[in-house]
Amino acid sequence: MRTLIKGGTVLSATGAVLADVLVDGETVAALSAPGIEWQAGKVIDATGKYVLPGGIDAHTHMEMPFGGTSSNDTFETGTTAAAWGGTTTIIDFAVQAKGTTLQSTLDKWHSKADGNCAIDYGFHMIVSDVNDTSLKEMQTCIDQGVNSFKMFMAYPGVFYATDGEILRAMQRAENTGGLIMMHAENGIAIDELVAQALREGRTDPVQHGLTRPSALEGEATSRAITLAKVTGAPLYIVHLSAAEALEAVANARNTGQNVFAETCPQYLYLSIEDLAKPGFEGSKYVASPPLRPKEHQASLWNGLRTNDLSVVSTDHCPFCFNEQKELGRGDFSKIPNGIPGVEHRMDLLHQGVVAGELSLARWVEITSTTPARMFGLYPRKGTISPGSDADIVVYDPAAKQTLSVETHHMNVDYSAYEGMEITGKVDTVLSRGRVVVAGNAFHGSAGHGQFLSRDLCQYLN
Amino acid sequence: MRTLIKGGTVLSATGAVLADVLVDGETVAALSAPGIEWQAGKVIDATGKYVLPGGIDAHTHMEMPFGGTSSNDTFETGTTAAAWGGTTTIIDFAVQAKGTTLQSTLDKWHSKADGNCAIDYGFHMIVSDVNDTSLKEMQTCIDQGVNSFKMFMAYPGVFYATDGEILRAMQRAENTGGLIMMHAENGIAIDELVAQALREGRTDPVQHGLTRPSALEGEATSRAITLAKVTGAPLYIVHLSAAEALEAVANARNTGQNVFAETCPQYLYLSIEDLAKPGFEGSKYVASPPLRPKEHQASLWNGLRTNDLSVVSTDHCPFCFNEQKELGRGDFSKIPNGIPGVEHRMDLLHQGVVAGELSLARWVEITSTTPARMFGLYPRKGTISPGSDADIVVYDPAAKQTLSVETHHMNVDYSAYEGMEITGKVDTVLSRGRVVVAGNAFHGSAGHGQFLSRDLCQYLN
Amino acid sequence: MRTLIKGGTVLSATGAVLADVLVDGETVAALSAPGIEWQAGKVIDATGKYVLPGGIDAHTHMEMPFGGTSSNDTFETGTTAAAWGGTTTIIDFAVQAKGTTLQSTLDKWHSKADGNCAIDYGFHMIVSDVNDTSLKEMQTCIDQGVNSFKMFMAYPGVFYATDGEILRAMQRAENTGGLIMMHAENGIAIDELVAQALREGRTDPVQHGLTRPSALEGEATSRAITLAKVTGAPLYIVHLSAAEALEAVANARNTGQNVFAETCPQYLYLSIEDLAKPGFEGSKYVASPPLRPKEHQASLWNGLRTNDLSVVSTDHCPFCFNEQKELGRGDFSKIPNGIPGVEHRMDLLHQGVVAGELSLARWVEITSTTPARMFGLYPRKGTISPGSDADIVVYDPAAKQTLSVETHHMNVDYSAYEGMEITGKVDTVLSRGRVVVAGNAFHGSAGHGQFLSRDLCQYLN
Amino acid sequence: MRTLIKGGTVLSATGAVLADVLVDGETVAALSAPGIEWQAGKVIDATGKYVLPGGIDAHTHMEMPFGGTSSNDTFETGTTAAAWGGTTTIIDFAVQAKGTTLQSTLDKWHSKADGNCAIDYGFHMIVSDVNDTSLKEMQTCIDQGVNSFKMFMAYPGVFYATDGEILRAMQRAENTGGLIMMHAENGIAIDELVAQALREGRTDPVQHGLTRPSALEGEATSRAITLAKVTGAPLYIVHLSAAEALEAVANARNTGQNVFAETCPQYLYLSIEDLAKPGFEGSKYVASPPLRPKEHQASLWNGLRTNDLSVVSTDHCPFCFNEQKELGRGDFSKIPNGIPGVEHRMDLLHQGVVAGELSLARWVEITSTTPARMFGLYPRKGTISPGSDADIVVYDPAAKQTLSVETHHMNVDYSAYEGMEITGKVDTVLSRGRVVVAGNAFHGSAGHGQFLSRDLCQYLN
Repeated sequence: MRTLIKGGTVLSATGAVLADVLVDGETVAALSAPGIEWQAGKVIDATGKYVLPGGIDAHTHMEMPFGGTSSNDTFETGTTAAAWGGTTTIIDFAVQAKGTTLQSTLDKWHSKADGNCAIDYGFHMIVSDVNDTSLKEMQTCIDQGVNSFKMFMAYPGVFYATDGEILRAMQRAENTGGLIMMHAENGIAIDELVAQALREGRTDPVQHGLTRPSALEGEATSRAITLAKVTGAPLYIVHLSAAEALEAVANARNTGQNVFAETCPQYLYLSIEDLAKPGFEGSKYVASPPLRPKEHQASLWNGLRTNDLSVVSTDHCPFCFNEQKELGRGDFSKIPNGIPGVEHRMDLLHQGVVAGELSLARWVEITSTTPARMFGLYPRKGTISPGSDADIVVYDPAAKQTLSVETHHMNVDYSAYEGMEITGKVDTVLSRGRVVVAGNAFHGSAGHGQFLSRDLCQYLN
Repeated sequence: MRTLIKGGTVLSATGAVLADVLVDGETVAALSAPGIEWQAGKVIDATGKYVLPGGIDAHTHMEMPFGGTSSNDTFETGTTAAAWGGTTTIIDFAVQAKGTTLQSTLDKWHSKADGNCAIDYGFHMIVSDVNDTSLKEMQTCIDQGVNSFKMFMAYPGVFYATDGEILRAMQRAENTGGLIMMHAENGIAIDELVAQALREGRTDPVQHGLTRPSALEGEATSRAITLAKVTGAPLYIVHLSAAEALEAVANARNTGQNVFAETCPQYLYLSIEDLAKPGFEGSKYVASPPLRPKEHQASLWNGLRTNDLSVVSTDHCPFCFNEQKELGRGDFSKIPNGIPGVEHRMDLLHQGVVAGELSLARWVEITSTTPARMFGLYPRKGTISPGSDADIVVYDPAAKQTLSVETHHMNVDYSAYEGMEITGKVDTVLSRGRVVVAGNAFHGSAGHGQFLSRDLCQYLN
Repeated sequence: MRTLIKGGTVLSATGAVLADVLVDGETVAALSAPGIEWQAGKVIDATGKYVLPGGIDAHTHMEMPFGGTSSNDTFETGTTAAAWGGTTTIIDFAVQAKGTTLQSTLDKWHSKADGNCAIDYGFHMIVSDVNDTSLKEMQTCIDQGVNSFKMFMAYPGVFYATDGEILRAMQRAENTGGLIMMHAENGIAIDELVAQALREGRTDPVQHGLTRPSALEGEATSRAITLAKVTGAPLYIVHLSAAEALEAVANARNTGQNVFAETCPQYLYLSIEDLAKPGFEGSKYVASPPLRPKEHQASLWNGLRTNDLSVVSTDHCPFCFNEQKELGRGDFSKIPNGIPGVEHRMDLLHQGVVAGELSLARWVEITSTTPARMFGLYPRKGTISPGSDADIVVYDPAAKQTLSVETHHMNVDYSAYEGMEITGKVDTVLSRGRVVVAGNAFHGSAGHGQFLSRDLCQYLN
Repeated sequence: MRTLIKGGTVLSATGAVLADVLVDGETVAALSAPGIEWQAGKVIDATGKYVLPGGIDAHTHMEMPFGGTSSNDTFETGTTAAAWGGTTTIIDFAVQAKGTTLQSTLDKWHSKADGNCAIDYGFHMIVSDVNDTSLKEMQTCIDQGVNSFKMFMAYPGVFYATDGEILRAMQRAENTGGLIMMHAENGIAIDELVAQALREGRTDPVQHGLTRPSALEGEATSRAITLAKVTGAPLYIVHLSAAEALEAVANARNTGQNVFAETCPQYLYLSIEDLAKPGFEGSKYVASPPLRPKEHQASLWNGLRTNDLSVVSTDHCPFCFNEQKELGRGDFSKIPNGIPGVEHRMDLLHQGVVAGELSLARWVEITSTTPARMFGLYPRKGTISPGSDADIVVYDPAAKQTLSVETHHMNVDYSAYEGMEITGKVDTVLSRGRVVVAGNAFHGSAGHGQFLSRDLCQYLN
């Protein structure tokens, strides 16, 4: 079956051209200039619209266990919401529980996702138990297309890895071609500050931000970079939120070290002022690293332009305000950490284009092309090229929409962006050639999405 | 007339795909996956070869007057040599003589190039006489597609502009959208060092390098960046050769300032040791900035990876060893400044890929895509996309060649890279759809190349 | 004749001790602990007071020609005012006029000062005409105890030296042991901004500040540092006012380069808001570099603590509001540049101690000990030690005073610090053993002060 | 009893003067110029010699338990050796054992030292057990004149403190005026590298250096600085050995943070090449941080000039080659850590003067005056001033000596500087007015030295 997307402005990471896109089955068959005629069973008129590679959200947490509860989107609801928002690939985190193997973890996550996803998906592996077995298993994970391994300098007693464990995992990554992803906050120092706050009766959500100062994200980022340097391993900093951390990344990159970083929309648009909202409202904005004082936002936008921040992911991890966030009333440290966002990333970053912060090409690059290259999916994903998967978004740059829990499709009872007005809106979405969103309706299905066995990072020198 | 380039690996600034490229007339009609069949009058088999956008050399000096002589390539010989090497666009410098207008300069350069170029060409304007008239003419140049204006902090009495003049021109650039290009060496201090050397009888070619220390390029680069900051103007540093200058550029870019820089192959592969060759041999390597101590090379390669160096141009400016370079026997300051190179840029940078310094995608980006975007030619140039000019290079990555004056096509009696062995070689070159190089023969013609009226820089935030 | 200063807290650059100071004739004969008894013709009771080495103001301009007028303090009035404020040594600038020799300049300044000074004095030489003769004369000046040579990157057409001239002078300094002092502002760029302001009818005093942006002081400072690095010469930046300049100095010092800098009280206490005072009031605050936005002040205080700023001088250059400053009504560029201050430096910096910005030891160090070492006067000056000149200030740290034109002794019709309340006040001042200020009366005389033939800088590695 | 030191050149932290020093009892009674005559029971002729304040070694470990053995100098032998070398004050470390209180630790160390020291001494406290009790005891220690608290980021399981514990101690220091001293090496990562080396059979002494890379000292130093910034506490980095660590200190100091650092003679003169000496010889040079590659030495000398390194201490911790160092044959991790040096610090740093690395004034400053001010002993120690303790060294700058185990007085069976030729030698040493070394003989006695109750650090802004 052929589909022709006609008359649109096709965007890539380097710019825009007027071209038609012919999809044949699951992949792109051709891009052509206006004069070329095609036979196609279905024609999508993209006149006046952008045609861009489907978004890749490289950082999501669907149905993830956390603090006695689980993030509220299943792979089905989460990937469906992603599709609504123009994201056609997610890379979710399989979470090793202490005492279990990486393989059993991976198996478990496959069983959660298999048959349930509306769009394609891959996995990163969270390594929370560094030992001889799990280090060996890094290679078997890589063999199965899971080659990025997340570690935590935060959350002592849960995911926390010591610097010695990080060192070992990095040495192993250096040997195998794997990529270490780091949650870089000094959790040991933070836990002390948290304990002090609780002891002193400072229990409101804003304390979540105050007990995790940006300097301690900067510190951990620097430390991770040094450990990477000592071992020769590449490093990817997840959800960078602080100017100090960005400075550390920029310095390392200037010296040629293989250090990369992502930020998230919440750090670009929200701030500690949201955490400080009256009552328990601030709990909606509790995630780690925490929302920062507003002055960090300009640094992050700049980092996106300089490529010291290469990727924007969501760290989508939705917990309902009722029943879930409320677990932390009277003790901010018990508020489940996470902000929903998988549906809005493409729109929120398009606002950056509207506001003059980013070029159109850079919008595509940080939301799709670079994640594809970073995580070994290019050119299958991240580009509209002959042979690529036909993961395509037709985007109406002139449409207006208002973000709201009333209209979003994520399985969570609030929106972190409630009432925010957006210029631009997804019109049509194809996932591997199938129209999954069109005419403001969902046409996809759970199980359409396939597991992506990923190649190694394509940015390593 | 249709030409089909079949079976090749099509390269872009983000990666590689297996695809066929259909050319119709002067432009690209389609890219398609293997299954799609096309009618075409001519089929080029690119199996096992790269298919990439034609190179753009954004810094050449054809038949340029310098020190009583002229660079020895005409627009015809120079553009022909460029085509041989896979470069399908040059941007040459029109040189305002003091006391003349920018318009008359532009007219003169049009008359030199018109009807003589084998490939397409654009112009930058060298502003050597900053006054109310020439500042006003910056807008009329922009209206005619010449929107980048080079100034010199070197060459007092010739091209040198004072900081006040630079400031005025930058203010004008900020108003009009023009881009100031800077030759950043502290010429005032250098001239003093040169005079001292001559006074002390130090007259050999190596003195050219010794009297222009890298610190004075770093200084001028920093100064230009400060002047750009004060005025809000964007800045493009030409032929950056020194680690100190690169550091200044990197620092400015980290803060988000619109500062860009190019380097040249000679700074990546040659060094002051070449300038110090016995006899008068070193004169072949005299250019400004001078070749640097070897340790600068690693910094430059790193800068190309970090994008603090965004473009590689040649600063092609050929003077024959006999009769021309010899003008400086006994007085290095009289050696015409310039190194021939327009023919070898693509090959030399491909060596960077072979050596693991650059990825294939980055090779295309710094030699074609970025220059196109930087100088307002994208997507007409710099990409193989539907509607783009069919400036295409079929490149054989496995071929071997040896660079030599015996075999090169530049109109100059020596090669700066004599005997250098290269892996990879241009196989076929199309310029606006016409095969100009194939089967190791030239099929192009003077006059095929057209003037390119350029848009503004596409990188300004 | 012996004088005993008894019971005071003797301050040095490293701290404070309770000790008596015995002066015999012109020099210090002994410091002793309380138990030691001395015969002395005169006893000064310093109980509860500080006893510190007399201040050294290394940057004054007495009766200096500038823009058709002269600074209004003569050597007599200026040194008398200095003594009132606890400064017992000044180093004034002899100003070479273009076309004259350094020797004739020095002779002229000797004739101005000889027999007229109330306290000891030395000279720096302003080199405004760099040529073979003046470069040779640098050595003869050094032989006569004048070994620091000021140059200007500002004031084109007046004092301005080109980078080539600066380079030559620095080479000469490197050979002879001389010290280059630099007025670091990019005068060429500034003059263009000034011309633009005047052309556009922006003529008020505040324009003086707006046309001399701090970035252009930072730039010139960096440039001077690079030239010093290229030549191997030491460098002393005068009247540093801008955070950008301080950063350049700090970076150079971190690498071990012999770069030093002074700031002035006006940059610590006054700001561009003073320049913007209504009417023509702002003219009182016109000096170059200009007063900066307030945020620079914290940087300067920090620089004083880190020793990136080693000295505080006044750049005392008094022009009366009436008749002198008024020359620039309607054209800020014609306002004579300078702020009176020689009398208040010790008091103003003591305020830094009161405010917790500086320690007592650091107060002494930056106002006396370091200038002595920097300019080859130690241990004759800058310390209270056996054999040192008995230049001693007894300072009452608890006294209160209000600065005002009504009470100051400088020959100028306004105070830049009018109404400012100060804690601490000079009680008694000795100059070479003679009490010149005591009991709120002046006991000195013109002619007491002697010329100081200075040794070379004592800080060069 | 009065002693007159006559005819010498009296050195201070700011320079040199010709003066006589009168000692009366235990303190300095007067400094006087040559003309003043004194009655004195004893006259020391210092003509042609330096007279300087006795050295203060702020970092020694006498009879310290370490790894099942103890450092081999007792307070008696160690302080005697110190006196021989011109050091008249040591500050030794009391070492809290886990599970014990600070008070009992202090009591224990008092009982070790009391009646046994030949020169005056103070204590720092090593806090190895951070808990509510020990945090409270910080104040009681301060009340007893012990106000500096050392913590370790190295030696997990022994002295190691977590970042949370460091944070708590720093908060306490910020409240009380105490000073945190830090052994900054990332011990967690290092222990992993050590384990790997041993596992792989790399057991020689040089592995001690290879498993403790300088980057991990830089990292820990940065981390300590960040924790200090978060808490507002001052920080003193002990035995800084690596260029990366120095850079971190310099950056922090540039921003005005209260961060200080010391280095040690072994890092200035010895290198990893010593650790790599054949056989087991390298064990003599095992200390932590380890000796570094030679290129770090120039950075350290520069840091001493820029004052980013403020103090030179010895980290004197002598273990005999026989029986002690030998515990680590076949397992470098079991070699007792430490190098003897308390006797040679003044001489070794004087070599820096001879070599042109330091001025005479700086020699005195980093070996005596600054340690006195840093650790609250000034002006009792660190200066020759009326009322100061008469801790005075008469130093012969022209004498020659060769360092050797044959001649040194430390109780250890090897010299780390065996055969090194030194220009300059201690002639006479006074401790609180008593001649303890003279005529190449020791005249002191155990028990002469008194405990110094110290004031707070005098450098805090």
